[in-house]
Amino acid sequence: MKIEVMKNILSENDKIAEENRKLFNDKKIFVINLMGSPGSGKTSLLELTLAKLKDEIKIAVIEGDLFTAKDAERIENHNVPVVQINTAGGCHLDAAMVKRAIESLDLDSLDLIIVENVGNLVCPAEFDVGENCKVVVLSITEGDDKPLKYPLIFKESAVTILNKIDLLKFTNFNLNSAREDLTTIHPNIKIIETSCTNSNGIDEWCKWIKNSL
Amino acid sequence: MKIEVMKNILSENDKIAEENRKLFNDKKIFVINLMGSPGSGKTSLLELTLAKLKDEIKIAVIEGDLFTAKDAERIENHNVPVVQINTAGGCHLDAAMVKRAIESLDLDSLDLIIVENVGNLVCPAEFDVGENCKVVVLSITEGDDKPLKYPLIFKESAVTILNKIDLLKFTNFNLNSAREDLTTIHPNIKIIETSCTNSNGIDEWCKWIKNSL
Repeated sequence: MKIEVMKNILSENDKIAEENRKLFNDKKIFVINLMGSPGSGKTSLLELTLAKLKDEIKIAVIEGDLFTAKDAERIENHNVPVVQINTAGGCHLDAAMVKRAIESLDLDSLDLIIVENVGNLVCPAEFDVGENCKVVVLSITEGDDKPLKYPLIFKESAVTILNKIDLLKFTNFNLNSAREDLTTIHPNIKIIETSCTNSNGIDEWCKWIKNSL
Repeated sequence: MKIEVMKNILSENDKIAEENRKLFNDKKIFVINLMGSPGSGKTSLLELTLAKLKDEIKIAVIEGDLFTAKDAERIENHNVPVVQINTAGGCHLDAAMVKRAIESLDLDSLDLIIVENVGNLVCPAEFDVGENCKVVVLSITEGDDKPLKYPLIFKESAVTILNKIDLLKFTNFNLNSAREDLTTIHPNIKIIETSCTNSNGIDEWCKWIKNSL
């Protein structure tokens, strides 16, 4: 019974996700679904990305949070269109939420939409929102055991951002074993090491975005 | 429709949680549901707790993970009974899982069970597993905005452990505003600052456990 309900919800979600994807494709907009644990650095990465790319590429942001518009306010300072979705306790964004959010964006004027999902290393990976690709941010301070413990999100993501790399020396995070585990789970995964404190790796990440458009 | 299904699952869960709670009460076992984001330091805190308390208090651990027995293996090194629950992708533990897990524990020989939930700051807070109290671990590196962004888990928890306090100086985490937000959400919450690297605060945490038994 439970399994059946889950299937129904997922297949309804997949239907709306396909509609979103078709619309994005028609409008030639590349869409990134940005995921990661609470505090992995998704919003900080977004802020640096906007600072670097917004003059070359027309970008909008969809911010997913349970409550508050704290992240959307941070993004708004960068003068790009931003829509806040509050899930009121819901643990992930779904395709219907993104569909409603894009109604208030001028899609004809955009090249890229970055959807910042709810901070959660589990549920967001299960829900297609119509994106072109998923990207997961894992911070060094979370520990190198996370890829094997939460494999789905790393399997689903085209890119893993290893963030807070500036804190590596204060932790017991083993970069080699994390890289090994990531490529075992997802052989073609792109791994980019970044620090949003000193901006290391941000160029490489922005280059990856530009090459993907 | 969706809401109704959710209600059914939750009320079924609450029923089993009450059965678990009654059993724990009959056996005079105190049960802590330990929650927090991936990599907040739940397992490290557990290891230090066991090292300090296992000779005075009879403790067992239930480990919740999506996949792998990595955490259970770390706990097993401390020679306490440990049961691993693998949720196979599920984002939280529920009461039925804990009910099955305790079947393999000798409840007559225990004073304390610590249930380490799946790493997730959202879903575990919604599911009573029959515990006496919930405790949430928030690491400094996750950022001071997390209590307002994920209020339910802090509202539900008797204690917030502010972990990785040794990394405070390398971050922009504002302790005062985090403490203010936590007490706004939950006026009676107990806040304990810890470092699992240098063991600061572990005495205070273990004292809190002993006073709660």
